[in-house]
Amino acid sequence: MPEVRVDEVRRFMEDSLRAVGAPESEAVAHAALLLHADVTGHFSHGLNRLEFYINDISSGLTDANAKPVILKESAATAWVDGANALGATVGNFCMDVAIRKAKECGIGWVVAKRSNHFGMAGWWALKAQLEGLIGLTFTNSSPILVPTRAKKGTLGTNPIAMFAPATGGDYIGVDMASTTVAMGKIEVQIHKKEPLPEGWAMGTDGKVTTDAQEAFKAGRLLPLGGLESTGGYKGYGLSAIGEVFCSGLSGSNCTHRVPKWSFTRQGDPMDLGQCYAAIDPNCFAPGFGERIADCLRTWRNLEPVDPELPVLAPGDKERINAEQTTKRGSIIYSESQIESCDTMARKIGIKPLKVV
Amino acid sequence: MPEVRVDEVRRFMEDSLRAVGAPESEAVAHAALLLHADVTGHFSHGLNRLEFYINDISSGLTDANAKPVILKESAATAWVDGANALGATVGNFCMDVAIRKAKECGIGWVVAKRSNHFGMAGWWALKAQLEGLIGLTFTNSSPILVPTRAKKGTLGTNPIAMFAPATGGDYIGVDMASTTVAMGKIEVQIHKKEPLPEGWAMGTDGKVTTDAQEAFKAGRLLPLGGLESTGGYKGYGLSAIGEVFCSGLSGSNCTHRVPKWSFTRQGDPMDLGQCYAAIDPNCFAPGFGERIADCLRTWRNLEPVDPELPVLAPGDKERINAEQTTKRGSIIYSESQIESCDTMARKIGIKPLKVV
Repeated sequence: MPEVRVDEVRRFMEDSLRAVGAPESEAVAHAALLLHADVTGHFSHGLNRLEFYINDISSGLTDANAKPVILKESAATAWVDGANALGATVGNFCMDVAIRKAKECGIGWVVAKRSNHFGMAGWWALKAQLEGLIGLTFTNSSPILVPTRAKKGTLGTNPIAMFAPATGGDYIGVDMASTTVAMGKIEVQIHKKEPLPEGWAMGTDGKVTTDAQEAFKAGRLLPLGGLESTGGYKGYGLSAIGEVFCSGLSGSNCTHRVPKWSFTRQGDPMDLGQCYAAIDPNCFAPGFGERIADCLRTWRNLEPVDPELPVLAPGDKERINAEQTTKRGSIIYSESQIESCDTMARKIGIKPLKVV
Repeated sequence: MPEVRVDEVRRFMEDSLRAVGAPESEAVAHAALLLHADVTGHFSHGLNRLEFYINDISSGLTDANAKPVILKESAATAWVDGANALGATVGNFCMDVAIRKAKECGIGWVVAKRSNHFGMAGWWALKAQLEGLIGLTFTNSSPILVPTRAKKGTLGTNPIAMFAPATGGDYIGVDMASTTVAMGKIEVQIHKKEPLPEGWAMGTDGKVTTDAQEAFKAGRLLPLGGLESTGGYKGYGLSAIGEVFCSGLSGSNCTHRVPKWSFTRQGDPMDLGQCYAAIDPNCFAPGFGERIADCLRTWRNLEPVDPELPVLAPGDKERINAEQTTKRGSIIYSESQIESCDTMARKIGIKPLKVV
């Protein structure tokens, strides 16, 4: 499998974004967001997605030079027009406002309309956590989640992320879609030529399928919990919470009106809704960081069912992946990923990715 | 099956609470909370639980005469000492503060330590929704959720509730445990003499069981999503979010230190942590209620897999149940529920439940 130095991946991402007209600061910010996904092992949200953003900018669907503006605000809240800027541009703008408000009055709750895909939801919650705050992020997305009892996708994977700081630089980091899995995991099963577990997806006939190809073609993901008998209506409910906080508060497209995203999309901007919140633990009981550390210690020390598979706290998997990537200094991609990057590099006239 | 008039259930609940020393206002408030569960069809949180609260008051574990106090506050936040009062006392106090702050500055985020079980989480979120606000509620609970890869319960069912108003008095109402099901649903399978679906619970051996008796005995519920392969780590993550907002912010017991609740419990107070938030949609984009109504209409009109089972919006099941109960004017309980109420009535010296 081809290996690429971390700095070279960053260089390639930044060059790509600059080549289609993103200003320096936004190319750097958006590359940092995508690189974080690959470094933490979430390959569905990193280099794999770069061409989607490049297509959106070069076809004029995203305005990489736009600047978000606050339309309305109170001491603790803000309503933002994302101005159809890059997801990272909107994310940095909104989370900075939320952090400032949290430091001033305990909580900042910021929503944006006219945004675009903002990569891993957790990246934005992490930004608040690094300031000693609880970070909370939601986004809506394309209609792909099948509500309980229905036949086709109407809500989104609408992820929820929450990061909370513990003492000693430790933290709890939750970053999860409201579906059982993201579409990227179905693609992985296709590459492995393995069936899906029951409860991941529906086929085009509106029945649960274990055929990965059929599931990919249908694009109908089951909510977290799967079918009604195993609590799938709860994943549907989580997605609805995201919808209320994102399109409901911001006035963006509701998920059922969001266009499908692709390498070659034309048409209207996505007009996604997003919600960014920061909460200052100092406004509540003293000793927050110690209590979070106590939880982390307790969970990690639980006796595992399989001694080979230790119990992890939410966020540990990503942290372990990031440590391994940093130690190795490089990221391992599939052959087809490198090939598609080469094709794109030729198209936009930049230096291709240098494989080690 | 025995049927009891709704007003008679209310009379019985209030009498019971008064008999063990609850003041009039709190007996009325706590009965309203429990009655709401039975009226909406969540029998696990209504009359079924009354004796737990009665036991807690008569054994001095809960102080029904206590009044919560604000320990620290900012324009948008408050930290409350629940003073070991009844769950309904703490709930009303905290949600009233959150609603006031939301009306003043867009959002109110209130956490309480030293609280007790507060019934259905949705009741408190509903309270904000009736004021035209988004309501959000979390609580921690007893250690019963088994984290992914672990053998025994350490986190709680830690429910999340979110209610959001739509135009015309309509609303989205999400009220869900972080486990696939609550323990009450396992008791229902025992009464029906039916096995559990895969993914609900673990047995005492730390393996997934479909034996309802074994699951009840073990008290080890799987997180929403079930095992790791079907996203169970996400239910674990949701429970962790609840823990951060409840024990983390409030300084209450973390779930792994909360005692198990029962009819006959002795020992220390529960010291639960709870989080109550209200958000004013008027601080964001105009037209919130219309957008929520658009979502509700879209979801309810989806083509169902089974024409006999229409697609519901989150909260519809409870609303339909409440409409039917109100029309009938009575609630249907099991024989054993009535018998255990009779026993309790004799013990505390009140008039037994009058069956129609």
